Amino acid sequence: MDYFSDTMSKLIAELSKLPGIGPKSAGRLAFHILDMPAEEVESLANALTAAKKNIRYCKTCCTITDEEECPICRSSKRDHSVIMVVENARDLAAYEKTGKFNGVYHVLQGAISPMLGIGPSDIKLKELVERLRGDVKEVIIATNSSLEGETTAMYISKLIKPAGIKVSRIASGVPVGGDLECIDEVTLLRALEGRVEI
Amino acid sequence: MDYFSDTMSKLIAELSKLPGIGPKSAGRLAFHILDMPAEEVESLANALTAAKKNIRYCKTCCTITDEEECPICRSSKRDHSVIMVVENARDLAAYEKTGKFNGVYHVLQGAISPMLGIGPSDIKLKELVERLRGDVKEVIIATNSSLEGETTAMYISKLIKPAGIKVSRIASGVPVGGDLECIDEVTLLRALEGRVEI
Repeated sequence: MDYFSDTMSKLIAELSKLPGIGPKSAGRLAFHILDMPAEEVESLANALTAAKKNIRYCKTCCTITDEEECPICRSSKRDHSVIMVVENARDLAAYEKTGKFNGVYHVLQGAISPMLGIGPSDIKLKELVERLRGDVKEVIIATNSSLEGETTAMYISKLIKPAGIKVSRIASGVPVGGDLECIDEVTLLRALEGRVEI
Repeated sequence: MDYFSDTMSKLIAELSKLPGIGPKSAGRLAFHILDMPAEEVESLANALTAAKKNIRYCKTCCTITDEEECPICRSSKRDHSVIMVVENARDLAAYEKTGKFNGVYHVLQGAISPMLGIGPSDIKLKELVERLRGDVKEVIIATNSSLEGETTAMYISKLIKPAGIKVSRIASGVPVGGDLECIDEVTLLRALEGRVEI
């Protein structure tokens, strides 16, 4: 039964479809939206449809962009001979925030996961191999440190190495500021294996 | 700096304006929206604008509705001589869910709060007094059990009683299923004061 108006129930139903938003939060959001100025609601609604309509994938690195090619791929200031391979655009953003990586990226839009039935052909690997025909010195694999991420890293490494291109994997170990006693054994072992002389 | 496309950054910015949604959740939601079918995004956007455009307040009880008068106020099955006064439409929905209240409601759209500068004229009290000219037997005050809710309840009671209408307040006490040791002292005292013979 509807305790609110149909329009309100519809809004609550639509909001609760979003991840992490249950019926209670959806109700709270819906009432907040009712109290928002009409222009702001309009602007939110437009942002939603614009995102779906305008965003496409960069023809080179497959990240999300508004144009045919993303600003990083178009930039002449970036080193196009070093490609960092990431799983998604959020991971790209995470490395961009460090401001220290000057190469370019390749966004796989996923990771190989036999469990979920995602194979090598379901992610943007063909596009990566295509790019290697150019002048590429190093491919840095920055997929997540999860089972899927590691599987993907191994797969890419085996795929690329025969072409004589240097392939590296970002280091696994104790996060900066991390308390040793709070860190899992696998990470501790990785940190030990990956120790560097000082 | 924008790590995503402008359209994406705009969507994330719009989503993070909503209550309880920080930049991280907004990013997660935005990426989810990108993966949603276009019709679903359209439907969400439409629900947002429709809510703002179509929802108005019932001319009788001031709850949110799509029509001039809400279905409860229009219903001939409800007892229009018993009015339950609530702070907002969510509280109305909470009582409607019990399915046991057969009277009608009055939604104050707020509560008196000297702290926030909300006085009796800022809530729908005038509209309530107007309704009492009709055939009203009882006014049940179901404002929250907070300082503002209690203040509002006291105010309404003093306002209405002189007119000879029965005024009651919903009981305050231990919630059903509540563990005594987890309940605050004020509630325990209220439960003691409000004890009923069995």
